Amino acid sequence: MSDVSVLGLGLMGSSIAHTLIDKGYSVTVWNRTTEKAAPLTAAGGKAAFTAVEAVESSPITISVLVDSSALVECLGDDIDLTGRTIVNLATGTPADARELEQWVTKRNGLMLSGTISAYPKDIGTPVGGVNYAGPIELWNRNAEMLLALGGLSGHVGEVITDASTLDLSMLIFYMSSIAAFQEAVVFAEAFGVSPDRLVEFVRPGLPVLEREVDETVRRVESGDYTTDEATIGTFHHCMDLVWKASATIAARPIISSAARELFALGVSEGRANEIPSGAVPLLRQIRDRSQHS
Amino acid sequence: MSDVSVLGLGLMGSSIAHTLIDKGYSVTVWNRTTEKAAPLTAAGGKAAFTAVEAVESSPITISVLVDSSALVECLGDDIDLTGRTIVNLATGTPADARELEQWVTKRNGLMLSGTISAYPKDIGTPVGGVNYAGPIELWNRNAEMLLALGGLSGHVGEVITDASTLDLSMLIFYMSSIAAFQEAVVFAEAFGVSPDRLVEFVRPGLPVLEREVDETVRRVESGDYTTDEATIGTFHHCMDLVWKASATIAARPIISSAARELFALGVSEGRANEIPSGAVPLLRQIRDRSQHS
Repeated sequence: MSDVSVLGLGLMGSSIAHTLIDKGYSVTVWNRTTEKAAPLTAAGGKAAFTAVEAVESSPITISVLVDSSALVECLGDDIDLTGRTIVNLATGTPADARELEQWVTKRNGLMLSGTISAYPKDIGTPVGGVNYAGPIELWNRNAEMLLALGGLSGHVGEVITDASTLDLSMLIFYMSSIAAFQEAVVFAEAFGVSPDRLVEFVRPGLPVLEREVDETVRRVESGDYTTDEATIGTFHHCMDLVWKASATIAARPIISSAARELFALGVSEGRANEIPSGAVPLLRQIRDRSQHS
Repeated sequence: MSDVSVLGLGLMGSSIAHTLIDKGYSVTVWNRTTEKAAPLTAAGGKAAFTAVEAVESSPITISVLVDSSALVECLGDDIDLTGRTIVNLATGTPADARELEQWVTKRNGLMLSGTISAYPKDIGTPVGGVNYAGPIELWNRNAEMLLALGGLSGHVGEVITDASTLDLSMLIFYMSSIAAFQEAVVFAEAFGVSPDRLVEFVRPGLPVLEREVDETVRRVESGDYTTDEATIGTFHHCMDLVWKASATIAARPIISSAARELFALGVSEGRANEIPSGAVPLLRQIRDRSQHS
Protein backbone atom coordinates (compact mmCIF):
# COMPACT_ATOMS: atom_id res chain seq x y z
CA MET A 1 0.00 0.00 0.00
CA SER A 2 1.04 3.58 -0.67
CA ASP A 3 0.03 6.61 1.38
CA VAL A 4 -1.50 8.39 -1.59
CA SER A 5 -2.13 7.98 -5.32
CA VAL A 6 -2.07 10.68 -7.96
CA LEU A 7 -4.02 10.36 -11.21
CA GLY A 8 -3.02 12.57 -14.13
CA LEU A 9 0.62 13.55 -14.61
CA GLY A 10 0.44 16.76 -16.58
CA LEU A 11 2.53 19.68 -15.28
CA MET A 12 0.25 20.13 -12.26
CA GLY A 13 -0.20 16.42 -11.42
CA SER A 14 3.54 15.79 -11.73
CA SER A 15 4.32 18.74 -9.47
CA ILE A 16 1.85 17.43 -6.87
CA ALA A 17 3.27 13.90 -7.00
CA HIS A 18 6.87 15.18 -6.77
CA THR A 19 5.95 17.38 -3.80
CA LEU A 20 4.35 14.48 -1.93
CA ILE A 21 7.38 12.23 -2.59
CA ASP A 22 9.70 15.03 -1.43
CA LYS A 23 7.71 15.40 1.78
CA GLY A 24 8.22 11.70 2.56
CA TYR A 25 4.93 10.14 1.46
CA SER A 26 4.86 6.87 -0.47
CA VAL A 27 3.14 7.72 -3.74
CA THR A 28 1.57 5.66 -6.50
CA VAL A 29 1.07 7.46 -9.83
CA TRP A 30 -0.92 6.81 -12.97
CA ASN A 31 -1.23 8.55 -16.30
CA ARG A 32 -3.01 7.56 -19.52
CA THR A 33 0.28 7.70 -21.39
CA THR A 34 2.80 5.81 -19.26
CA GLU A 35 6.02 7.71 -20.16
CA LYS A 36 4.99 10.62 -17.94
CA ALA A 37 5.36 8.34 -14.91
CA ALA A 38 9.08 7.75 -15.54
CA PRO A 39 10.48 10.87 -13.76
CA LEU A 40 8.28 10.02 -10.77
CA THR A 41 9.31 6.37 -10.47
CA ALA A 42 12.91 7.63 -10.77
CA ALA A 43 12.19 9.91 -7.79
CA GLY A 44 10.85 7.01 -5.72
CA GLY A 45 7.19 6.73 -6.73
CA LYS A 46 5.42 3.57 -7.85
CA ALA A 47 3.64 3.43 -11.22
CA ALA A 48 0.25 1.72 -11.49
CA PHE A 49 -0.85 0.09 -14.75
CA THR A 50 -4.44 1.30 -14.51
CA ALA A 51 -6.30 4.07 -12.73
CA VAL A 52 -8.27 1.44 -10.81
CA GLU A 53 -5.05 -0.18 -9.61
CA ALA A 54 -3.77 3.25 -8.49
CA VAL A 55 -6.96 3.96 -6.51
CA GLU A 56 -6.76 0.50 -4.91
CA SER A 57 -3.13 1.10 -3.88
CA SER A 58 -3.87 3.95 -1.42
CA PRO A 59 -6.50 5.08 1.09
CA ILE A 60 -6.59 8.46 -0.65
CA THR A 61 -6.36 9.38 -4.33
CA ILE A 62 -5.78 12.86 -5.72
CA SER A 63 -7.17 13.32 -9.22
CA VAL A 64 -5.61 15.95 -11.45
CA LEU A 65 -7.25 14.63 -14.60
CA VAL A 66 -8.73 17.18 -17.01
CA ASP A 67 -12.24 17.03 -15.50
CA SER A 68 -14.49 14.86 -13.35
CA SER A 69 -15.92 12.93 -16.31
CA ALA A 70 -12.38 11.84 -17.24
CA LEU A 71 -12.08 10.44 -13.71
CA VAL A 72 -15.40 8.58 -13.93
CA GLU A 73 -14.41 7.23 -17.31
CA CYS A 74 -11.06 5.82 -16.26
CA LEU A 75 -12.35 4.32 -13.00
CA GLY A 76 -15.47 2.75 -14.55
CA ASP A 77 -18.90 2.41 -13.00
CA ASP A 78 -18.12 -0.96 -11.34
CA ILE A 79 -15.37 0.29 -9.03
CA ASP A 80 -15.83 -0.23 -5.27
CA LEU A 81 -14.57 2.79 -3.29
CA THR A 82 -15.41 1.48 0.18
CA GLY A 83 -13.17 3.20 2.73
CA ARG A 84 -11.41 5.25 0.06
CA THR A 85 -11.19 9.02 -0.31
CA ILE A 86 -11.12 10.79 -3.65
CA VAL A 87 -9.74 14.34 -3.75
CA ASN A 88 -10.78 15.84 -7.07
CA LEU A 89 -8.67 18.83 -8.13
CA ALA A 90 -9.95 19.15 -11.71
CA THR A 91 -11.38 22.62 -12.42
CA GLY A 92 -15.13 22.36 -12.83
CA THR A 93 -18.50 23.82 -12.01
CA PRO A 94 -20.27 23.45 -8.66
CA ALA A 95 -22.63 21.00 -10.43
CA ASP A 96 -19.64 18.88 -11.53
CA ALA A 97 -18.50 18.65 -7.90
CA ARG A 98 -21.98 17.67 -6.73
CA GLU A 99 -22.41 15.02 -9.43
CA LEU A 100 -19.02 13.49 -8.75
CA GLU A 101 -19.75 13.39 -5.03
CA GLN A 102 -22.96 11.47 -5.72
CA TRP A 103 -21.08 9.06 -7.97
CA VAL A 104 -18.36 8.47 -5.35
CA THR A 105 -20.86 8.15 -2.47
CA LYS A 106 -22.90 5.60 -4.42
CA ARG A 107 -19.72 3.47 -4.59
CA ASN A 108 -19.17 3.86 -0.81
CA GLY A 109 -16.33 6.33 -1.21
CA LEU A 110 -15.71 9.71 0.41
CA MET A 111 -14.82 12.87 -1.42
CA LEU A 112 -13.21 16.29 -1.11
CA SER A 113 -13.42 18.76 -3.99
CA GLY A 114 -10.54 21.18 -4.41
CA THR A 115 -9.50 24.07 -6.60
CA ILE A 116 -5.89 24.96 -7.29
CA SER A 117 -4.81 28.62 -7.13
CA ALA A 118 -1.17 28.08 -7.97
CA TYR A 119 1.18 27.49 -10.85
CA PRO A 120 2.80 24.02 -10.90
CA LYS A 121 6.07 25.59 -9.70
CA ASP A 122 4.30 26.98 -6.59
CA ILE A 123 2.95 23.62 -5.39
CA GLY A 124 4.57 22.70 -2.08
CA THR A 125 5.82 26.26 -1.50
CA PRO A 126 4.45 28.95 0.86
CA VAL A 127 2.67 30.73 -2.05
CA GLY A 128 0.96 27.63 -3.44
CA GLY A 129 -2.72 27.31 -2.59
CA VAL A 130 -5.32 24.58 -2.90
CA ASN A 131 -8.80 25.18 -1.46
CA TYR A 132 -10.69 22.09 -0.35
CA ALA A 133 -14.41 21.61 0.31
CA GLY A 134 -16.17 18.65 1.92
CA PRO A 135 -16.95 17.06 5.31
CA ILE A 136 -14.83 18.59 8.08
CA GLU A 137 -13.88 15.28 9.71
CA LEU A 138 -12.68 13.96 6.34
CA TRP A 139 -10.65 17.14 5.98
CA ASN A 140 -9.18 16.84 9.49
CA ARG A 141 -8.11 13.27 8.82
CA ASN A 142 -6.18 14.25 5.68
CA ALA A 143 -5.27 17.87 6.37
CA GLU A 144 -1.57 17.34 7.01
CA MET A 145 -0.97 15.72 3.61
CA LEU A 146 -3.25 18.11 1.72
CA LEU A 147 -1.76 21.21 3.33
CA ALA A 148 1.65 20.00 2.15
CA LEU A 149 0.63 21.10 -1.37
CA GLY A 150 1.08 24.77 -0.50
CA GLY A 151 1.12 27.32 2.29
CA LEU A 152 -2.02 29.13 1.19
CA SER A 153 -4.11 25.96 1.25
CA GLY A 154 -7.12 25.42 3.48
CA HIS A 155 -10.59 24.00 4.02
CA VAL A 156 -13.17 26.47 2.70
CA GLY A 157 -16.49 24.81 3.48
CA GLU A 158 -18.35 21.60 4.26
CA VAL A 159 -20.59 21.76 1.19
CA ILE A 160 -18.85 19.90 -1.65
CA THR A 161 -19.53 22.76 -4.11
CA ASP A 162 -17.93 25.47 -1.91
CA ALA A 163 -14.43 25.35 -3.42
CA SER A 164 -15.71 25.57 -6.99
CA THR A 165 -18.27 28.28 -6.11
CA LEU A 166 -15.65 30.46 -4.43
CA ASP A 167 -13.13 29.88 -7.20
CA LEU A 168 -15.50 30.72 -10.06
CA SER A 169 -17.04 33.71 -8.21
CA MET A 170 -13.58 35.12 -7.58
CA LEU A 171 -12.67 34.56 -11.24
CA ILE A 172 -15.86 36.32 -12.43
CA PHE A 173 -14.59 39.42 -10.63
CA TYR A 174 -10.93 39.02 -11.42
CA MET A 175 -11.01 37.94 -15.09
CA SER A 176 -13.80 40.39 -16.02
CA SER A 177 -11.89 43.24 -14.35
CA ILE A 178 -8.75 42.40 -16.30
CA ALA A 179 -10.80 42.29 -19.51
CA ALA A 180 -12.29 45.69 -18.62
CA PHE A 181 -8.81 47.17 -18.19
CA GLN A 182 -7.76 45.78 -21.58
CA GLU A 183 -10.78 47.41 -23.16
CA ALA A 184 -9.94 50.67 -21.37
CA VAL A 185 -6.42 50.54 -22.84
CA VAL A 186 -7.75 50.21 -26.39
CA PHE A 187 -10.34 52.97 -25.80
CA ALA A 188 -7.73 55.36 -24.41
CA GLU A 189 -5.16 54.78 -27.16
CA ALA A 190 -7.78 55.43 -29.85
CA PHE A 191 -8.04 58.96 -28.39
CA GLY A 192 -4.28 59.38 -28.14
CA VAL A 193 -3.74 58.40 -24.49
CA SER A 194 -1.02 55.80 -23.93
CA PRO A 195 -1.38 52.84 -21.52
CA ASP A 196 1.22 54.22 -19.10
CA ARG A 197 -0.69 57.49 -18.77
CA LEU A 198 -3.95 55.58 -18.31
CA VAL A 199 -2.50 53.37 -15.59
CA GLU A 200 -1.63 56.47 -13.54
CA PHE A 201 -5.35 57.18 -13.42
CA VAL A 202 -6.46 53.61 -12.82
CA ARG A 203 -4.03 52.80 -10.00
CA PRO A 204 -5.44 55.33 -7.48
CA GLY A 205 -8.87 53.76 -8.11
CA LEU A 206 -7.84 50.34 -6.77
CA PRO A 207 -8.29 51.18 -3.08
CA VAL A 208 -11.64 52.74 -4.06
CA LEU A 209 -12.55 49.45 -5.73
CA GLU A 210 -11.73 47.58 -2.52
CA ARG A 211 -13.95 49.95 -0.52
CA GLU A 212 -16.71 49.50 -3.10
CA VAL A 213 -16.46 45.72 -2.81
CA ASP A 214 -16.74 45.93 0.99
CA GLU A 215 -19.60 48.43 0.69
CA THR A 216 -21.48 46.05 -1.63
CA VAL A 217 -21.21 43.28 0.97
CA ARG A 218 -22.52 45.60 3.70
CA ARG A 219 -25.39 46.80 1.51
CA VAL A 220 -26.42 43.27 0.48
CA GLU A 221 -26.42 42.25 4.15
CA SER A 222 -28.50 45.26 5.23
CA GLY A 223 -30.73 45.37 2.13
CA ASP A 224 -30.42 49.17 2.16
CA TYR A 225 -29.53 50.53 -1.28
CA THR A 226 -30.26 54.24 -0.68
CA THR A 227 -27.46 56.74 -1.35
CA ASP A 228 -26.69 60.41 -1.85
CA GLU A 229 -23.55 59.59 -3.82
CA ALA A 230 -23.09 57.95 -7.26
CA THR A 231 -26.12 55.91 -8.33
CA ILE A 232 -27.04 53.20 -10.82
CA GLY A 233 -28.28 56.12 -12.95
CA THR A 234 -24.81 57.74 -12.81
CA PHE A 235 -23.12 54.46 -13.75
CA HIS A 236 -25.55 53.98 -16.62
CA HIS A 237 -24.96 57.52 -17.88
CA CYS A 238 -21.17 57.03 -17.85
CA MET A 239 -21.28 53.65 -19.60
CA ASP A 240 -23.66 55.20 -22.13
CA LEU A 241 -21.07 57.90 -22.89
CA VAL A 242 -18.45 55.15 -23.31
CA TRP A 243 -20.74 53.35 -25.72
CA LYS A 244 -21.30 56.51 -27.78
CA ALA A 245 -17.58 57.35 -27.80
CA SER A 246 -16.66 53.78 -28.77
CA ALA A 247 -18.95 54.05 -31.79
CA THR A 248 -17.00 57.09 -33.03
CA ILE A 249 -13.76 55.05 -33.10
CA ALA A 250 -15.39 51.83 -34.40
CA ALA A 251 -14.34 50.07 -31.19
CA ARG A 252 -16.39 47.16 -29.86
CA PRO A 253 -16.94 47.82 -26.15
CA ILE A 254 -17.61 44.20 -25.18
CA ILE A 255 -17.25 44.49 -21.40
CA SER A 256 -18.37 48.07 -20.87
CA SER A 257 -21.49 47.58 -22.98
CA ALA A 258 -22.35 44.61 -20.77
CA ALA A 259 -21.97 46.94 -17.77
CA ARG A 260 -24.10 49.51 -19.61
CA GLU A 261 -26.75 46.84 -20.18
CA LEU A 262 -26.77 45.87 -16.50
CA PHE A 263 -27.14 49.45 -15.27
CA ALA A 264 -29.73 50.22 -18.01
CA LEU A 265 -31.77 47.29 -16.66
CA GLY A 266 -31.41 48.85 -13.22
CA VAL A 267 -32.75 52.17 -14.54
CA SER A 268 -35.68 50.53 -16.35
CA GLU A 269 -36.56 48.56 -13.21
CA GLY A 270 -36.84 51.78 -11.18
CA ARG A 271 -33.46 51.50 -9.42
CA ALA A 272 -31.83 54.62 -10.98
CA ASN A 273 -31.43 56.35 -7.61
CA GLU A 274 -29.99 53.34 -5.80
CA ILE A 275 -26.34 52.79 -4.99
CA PRO A 276 -24.69 50.59 -7.69
CA SER A 277 -24.87 47.56 -5.35
CA GLY A 278 -28.58 47.69 -6.15
CA ALA A 279 -27.48 45.58 -9.13
CA VAL A 280 -27.40 42.62 -6.72
CA PRO A 281 -31.16 42.50 -6.01
CA LEU A 282 -31.70 43.35 -9.69
CA LEU A 283 -29.68 40.30 -10.79
CA ARG A 284 -31.60 38.17 -8.27
CA GLN A 285 -34.90 39.37 -9.80
CA ILE A 286 -33.68 38.48 -13.28
CA ARG A 287 -32.62 35.03 -12.04
CA ASP A 288 -35.88 34.41 -10.22
CA ARG A 289 -37.90 35.43 -13.25
CA SER A 290 -35.95 33.07 -15.55
CA GLN A 291 -36.41 30.25 -13.05
CA HIS A 292 -40.16 30.67 -13.30
CA SER A 293 -40.46 31.23 -17.02
CA MET B 1 -16.18 92.85 -14.23
CA SER B 2 -16.00 89.72 -12.12
CA ASP B 3 -13.03 87.37 -11.87
CA VAL B 4 -15.05 84.36 -12.97
CA SER B 5 -18.56 83.34 -14.02
CA VAL B 6 -20.30 80.05 -13.27
CA LEU B 7 -23.10 78.72 -15.49
CA GLY B 8 -25.40 76.05 -14.04
CA LEU B 9 -26.23 76.07 -10.34
CA GLY B 10 -27.15 72.49 -9.60
CA LEU B 11 -25.51 70.89 -6.55
CA MET B 12 -22.13 70.83 -8.29
CA GLY B 13 -22.28 74.29 -9.89
CA SER B 14 -23.43 75.85 -6.61
CA SER B 15 -20.63 74.15 -4.71
CA ILE B 16 -18.09 75.45 -7.25
CA ALA B 17 -19.47 79.01 -7.10
CA HIS B 18 -19.55 78.98 -3.27
CA THR B 19 -15.97 77.71 -3.15
CA LEU B 20 -14.74 80.47 -5.46
CA ILE B 21 -16.54 83.16 -3.44
CA ASP B 22 -15.08 81.69 -0.21
CA LYS B 23 -11.59 81.85 -1.71
CA GLY B 24 -12.00 85.56 -2.38
CA TYR B 25 -12.87 85.64 -6.09
CA SER B 26 -15.59 87.92 -7.40
CA VAL B 27 -18.11 85.58 -9.01
CA THR B 28 -21.02 86.08 -11.42
CA VAL B 29 -23.53 83.26 -11.56
CA TRP B 30 -26.31 82.23 -13.91
CA ASN B 31 -28.89 79.48 -13.90
CA ARG B 32 -31.86 78.80 -16.16
CA THR B 33 -34.21 79.03 -13.19
CA THR B 34 -33.21 82.14 -11.28
CA GLU B 35 -34.11 81.10 -7.69
CA LYS B 36 -31.01 78.90 -7.49
CA ALA B 37 -28.85 82.05 -7.66
CA ALA B 38 -30.32 83.47 -4.42
CA PRO B 39 -28.02 81.65 -1.92
CA LEU B 40 -25.03 82.75 -4.01
CA THR B 41 -25.97 86.42 -4.23
CA ALA B 42 -26.57 86.25 -0.45
CA ALA B 43 -22.99 84.94 -0.14
CA GLY B 44 -21.61 87.86 -2.17
CA GLY B 45 -21.95 86.70 -5.79
CA LYS B 46 -23.56 88.66 -8.61
CA ALA B 47 -26.46 87.19 -10.61
CA ALA B 48 -26.57 87.64 -14.38
CA PHE B 49 -29.92 87.71 -16.24
CA THR B 50 -28.67 85.68 -19.20
CA ALA B 51 -25.87 83.21 -19.86
CA VAL B 52 -24.43 85.63 -22.43
CA GLU B 53 -24.35 88.42 -19.85
CA ALA B 54 -22.59 86.06 -17.40
CA VAL B 55 -19.93 85.16 -19.99
CA GLU B 56 -19.41 88.83 -20.83
CA SER B 57 -18.96 89.69 -17.12
CA SER B 58 -15.69 87.71 -16.66
CA PRO B 59 -12.53 86.76 -18.55
CA ILE B 60 -13.21 83.11 -17.65
CA THR B 61 -16.47 81.15 -17.43
CA ILE B 62 -16.87 77.73 -15.84
CA SER B 63 -19.80 75.78 -17.29
CA VAL B 64 -21.44 73.13 -15.13
CA LEU B 65 -24.48 72.82 -17.37
CA VAL B 66 -25.74 69.31 -18.10
CA ASP B 67 -23.73 68.91 -21.32
CA SER B 68 -21.91 70.92 -23.97
CA SER B 69 -24.96 71.27 -26.21
CA ALA B 70 -26.81 72.97 -23.34
CA LEU B 71 -23.93 75.47 -23.23
CA VAL B 72 -24.04 76.10 -26.97
CA GLU B 73 -27.80 76.52 -26.79
CA CYS B 74 -27.83 79.10 -24.02
CA LEU B 75 -24.94 81.14 -25.49
CA GLY B 76 -26.26 81.13 -29.06
CA ASP B 77 -24.26 80.94 -32.26
CA ASP B 78 -23.80 84.74 -32.53
CA ILE B 79 -21.77 85.18 -29.35
CA ASP B 80 -18.31 86.73 -29.63
CA LEU B 81 -15.82 85.04 -27.28
CA THR B 82 -12.76 87.12 -28.20
CA GLY B 83 -10.30 87.03 -25.30
CA ARG B 84 -12.57 84.83 -23.17
CA THR B 85 -11.89 81.39 -21.75
CA ILE B 86 -14.56 78.71 -21.37
CA VAL B 87 -13.88 75.87 -18.91
CA ASN B 88 -16.42 73.16 -19.64
CA LEU B 89 -16.93 70.73 -16.76
CA ALA B 90 -19.98 68.90 -18.15
CA THR B 91 -19.41 65.14 -18.40
CA GLY B 92 -19.18 64.15 -22.03
CA THR B 93 -17.38 62.10 -24.65
CA PRO B 94 -14.02 63.04 -26.17
CA ALA B 95 -15.93 63.99 -29.34
CA ASP B 96 -18.11 66.39 -27.32
CA ALA B 97 -14.97 68.11 -26.02
CA ARG B 98 -13.51 68.37 -29.52
CA GLU B 99 -16.71 69.75 -31.03
CA LEU B 100 -17.14 72.34 -28.31
CA GLU B 101 -13.53 73.43 -28.70
CA GLN B 102 -14.13 74.00 -32.42
CA TRP B 103 -17.27 75.96 -31.65
CA VAL B 104 -15.46 78.14 -29.08
CA THR B 105 -12.40 78.65 -31.28
CA LYS B 106 -14.57 79.71 -34.22
CA ARG B 107 -15.91 82.50 -31.97
CA ASN B 108 -12.35 83.57 -31.02
CA GLY B 109 -12.55 82.04 -27.56
CA LEU B 110 -10.19 79.71 -25.71
CA MET B 111 -11.17 76.49 -23.98
CA LEU B 112 -10.21 74.01 -21.28
CA SER B 113 -12.19 70.78 -20.88
CA GLY B 114 -12.42 69.27 -17.42
CA THR B 115 -13.87 66.26 -15.65
CA ILE B 116 -14.93 66.30 -12.03
CA SER B 117 -13.94 63.37 -9.79
CA ALA B 118 -15.55 64.63 -6.62
CA TYR B 119 -18.87 64.91 -4.86
CA PRO B 120 -20.20 68.47 -4.50
CA LYS B 121 -19.22 68.44 -0.80
CA ASP B 122 -15.57 67.67 -1.75
CA ILE B 123 -15.15 70.70 -4.03
CA GLY B 124 -12.58 73.07 -2.55
CA THR B 125 -11.26 70.41 -0.12
CA PRO B 126 -8.03 68.39 -0.32
CA VAL B 127 -9.93 65.32 -1.65
CA GLY B 128 -11.81 67.15 -4.41
CA GLY B 129 -10.43 66.65 -7.89
CA VAL B 130 -11.00 68.24 -11.27
CA ASN B 131 -8.84 67.17 -14.22
CA TYR B 132 -8.31 69.75 -16.93
CA ALA B 133 -7.15 69.33 -20.52
CA GLY B 134 -6.15 72.01 -23.01
CA PRO B 135 -3.28 74.33 -24.00
CA ILE B 136 -0.63 74.48 -21.28
CA GLU B 137 -0.20 78.26 -21.35
CA LEU B 138 -3.97 78.69 -20.95
CA TRP B 139 -3.78 76.30 -18.00
CA ASN B 140 -0.83 78.16 -16.44
CA ARG B 141 -2.67 81.46 -16.67
CA ASN B 142 -5.71 80.10 -14.79
CA ALA B 143 -4.19 77.33 -12.68
CA GLU B 144 -4.43 79.09 -9.33
CA MET B 145 -8.18 79.59 -9.59
CA LEU B 146 -8.87 76.17 -11.09
CA LEU B 147 -6.75 74.34 -8.50
CA ALA B 148 -8.84 76.03 -5.80
CA LEU B 149 -11.65 73.62 -6.70
CA GLY B 150 -9.86 70.71 -4.99
CA GLY B 151 -6.54 69.33 -3.86
CA LEU B 152 -6.48 66.46 -6.30
CA SER B 153 -6.94 68.70 -9.34
CA GLY B 154 -4.44 69.04 -12.16
CA HIS B 155 -3.68 69.51 -15.82
CA VAL B 156 -3.77 66.10 -17.55
CA GLY B 157 -2.88 66.89 -21.15
CA GLU B 158 -2.73 69.49 -23.90
CA VAL B 159 -5.16 67.70 -26.20
CA ILE B 160 -8.67 68.93 -25.42
CA THR B 161 -10.04 65.36 -25.31
CA ASP B 162 -7.50 64.11 -22.72
CA ALA B 163 -9.59 64.71 -19.60
CA SER B 164 -12.65 62.97 -21.03
CA THR B 165 -10.58 60.09 -22.46
CA LEU B 166 -8.86 59.43 -19.14
CA ASP B 167 -12.09 59.77 -17.20
CA LEU B 168 -14.11 57.40 -19.39
CA SER B 169 -11.24 54.86 -19.69
CA MET B 170 -10.86 54.79 -15.92
CA LEU B 171 -14.62 54.34 -15.56
CA ILE B 172 -14.66 51.45 -18.08
CA PHE B 173 -12.32 49.62 -15.72
CA TYR B 174 -13.83 50.76 -12.47
CA MET B 175 -17.58 50.51 -13.18
CA SER B 176 -17.26 47.21 -15.08
CA SER B 177 -15.21 45.73 -12.22
CA ILE B 178 -17.85 46.74 -9.69
CA ALA B 179 -20.53 45.21 -11.91
CA ALA B 180 -18.46 42.01 -12.13
CA PHE B 181 -18.26 41.82 -8.34
CA GLN B 182 -22.02 42.26 -8.07
CA GLU B 183 -22.51 39.40 -10.51
CA ALA B 184 -20.06 37.28 -8.51
CA VAL B 185 -22.10 37.93 -5.35
CA VAL B 186 -25.29 36.68 -7.00
CA PHE B 187 -23.48 33.66 -8.48
CA ALA B 188 -21.98 32.70 -5.13
CA GLU B 189 -25.18 33.05 -3.12
CA ALA B 190 -27.06 30.85 -5.60
CA PHE B 191 -24.61 28.08 -4.58
CA GLY B 192 -24.95 28.84 -0.87
CA VAL B 193 -21.89 31.08 -0.39
CA SER B 194 -22.60 34.38 1.38
CA PRO B 195 -21.12 37.75 0.25
CA ASP B 196 -18.93 38.04 3.35
CA ARG B 197 -17.32 34.65 2.63
CA LEU B 198 -16.85 35.61 -1.02
CA VAL B 199 -15.17 38.90 -0.16
CA GLU B 200 -12.53 37.03 1.85
CA PHE B 201 -11.53 35.37 -1.43
CA VAL B 202 -11.80 38.46 -3.57
CA ARG B 203 -9.80 40.80 -1.32
CA PRO B 204 -6.46 38.96 -1.62
CA GLY B 205 -6.88 39.18 -5.41
CA LEU B 206 -6.77 42.98 -5.45
CA PRO B 207 -2.97 43.31 -5.31
CA VAL B 208 -2.85 40.63 -8.03
CA LEU B 209 -5.20 42.78 -10.10
CA GLU B 210 -2.86 45.74 -9.68
CA ARG B 211 0.11 43.64 -10.83
CA GLU B 212 -1.94 42.40 -13.79
CA VAL B 213 -2.82 45.98 -14.77
CA ASP B 214 0.87 46.96 -14.66
CA GLU B 215 1.82 43.80 -16.57
CA THR B 216 -0.71 44.64 -19.30
CA VAL B 217 0.89 48.07 -19.73
CA ARG B 218 4.38 46.51 -20.00
CA ARG B 219 3.18 43.89 -22.49
CA VAL B 220 1.38 46.42 -24.68
CA GLU B 221 4.55 48.54 -24.71
CA SER B 222 6.79 45.59 -25.59
CA GLY B 223 4.32 43.84 -27.92
CA ASP B 224 5.38 40.51 -26.37
CA TYR B 225 2.37 38.41 -25.37
CA THR B 226 4.13 35.07 -24.77
CA THR B 227 3.70 33.40 -21.39
CA ASP B 228 4.15 30.17 -19.49
CA GLU B 229 1.49 31.15 -16.98
CA ALA B 230 -2.29 31.62 -17.35
CA THR B 231 -3.34 32.25 -20.95
CA ILE B 232 -6.29 33.60 -22.90
CA GLY B 233 -7.24 29.92 -23.27
CA THR B 234 -7.28 29.50 -19.47
CA PHE B 235 -9.38 32.63 -19.03
CA HIS B 236 -11.79 31.42 -21.71
CA HIS B 237 -12.09 27.98 -20.10
CA CYS B 238 -12.88 29.52 -16.69
CA MET B 239 -15.46 31.95 -18.04
CA ASP B 240 -16.97 29.04 -19.98
CA LEU B 241 -17.38 27.12 -16.72
CA VAL B 242 -19.04 30.18 -15.20
CA TRP B 243 -21.40 30.36 -18.15
CA LYS B 244 -22.35 26.68 -17.79
CA ALA B 245 -22.78 26.98 -14.03
CA SER B 246 -24.89 30.15 -14.42
CA ALA B 247 -27.24 28.26 -16.72
CA THR B 248 -27.89 25.66 -13.99
CA ILE B 249 -29.13 28.41 -11.63
CA ALA B 250 -30.98 30.42 -14.32
CA ALA B 251 -28.65 33.36 -13.64
CA ARG B 252 -27.88 35.83 -16.40
CA PRO B 253 -24.10 36.28 -16.42
CA ILE B 254 -24.10 39.67 -18.15
CA ILE B 255 -20.52 40.78 -17.42
CA SER B 256 -18.79 37.40 -17.26
CA SER B 257 -20.34 36.24 -20.52
CA ALA B 258 -18.97 39.40 -22.12
CA ALA B 259 -15.55 38.40 -20.76
CA ARG B 260 -16.15 34.87 -22.07
CA GLU B 261 -16.98 36.32 -25.49
CA LEU B 262 -13.79 38.40 -25.52
CA PHE B 263 -11.54 35.48 -24.60
CA ALA B 264 -13.43 33.15 -26.99
CA LEU B 265 -12.63 35.64 -29.78
CA GLY B 266 -9.00 35.46 -28.64
CA VAL B 267 -9.05 31.66 -28.92
CA SER B 268 -10.69 31.71 -32.36
CA GLU B 269 -8.14 34.28 -33.58
CA GLY B 270 -5.26 31.96 -32.63
CA ARG B 271 -4.30 33.74 -29.40
CA ALA B 272 -5.18 30.91 -26.96
CA ASN B 273 -1.59 30.56 -25.75
CA GLU B 274 -0.99 34.27 -25.24
CA ILE B 275 -1.06 36.08 -21.91
CA PRO B 276 -4.53 37.64 -21.31
CA SER B 277 -3.16 41.08 -22.27
CA GLY B 278 -3.20 39.64 -25.80
CA ALA B 279 -6.81 40.88 -25.70
CA VAL B 280 -5.40 44.36 -26.38
CA PRO B 281 -4.09 43.63 -29.93
CA LEU B 282 -7.20 41.50 -30.44
CA LEU B 283 -9.48 44.46 -29.65
CA ARG B 284 -7.37 46.64 -31.93
CA GLN B 285 -7.86 44.13 -34.76
CA ILE B 286 -11.61 44.14 -34.21
CA ARG B 287 -11.61 47.95 -34.25
CA ASP B 288 -9.48 48.19 -37.38
CA ARG B 289 -11.68 45.69 -39.19
CA SER B 290 -14.86 47.63 -38.34
CA GLN B 291 -13.23 50.86 -39.50
CA HIS B 292 -12.59 49.31 -42.90
CA SER B 293 -15.89 47.52 -43.33
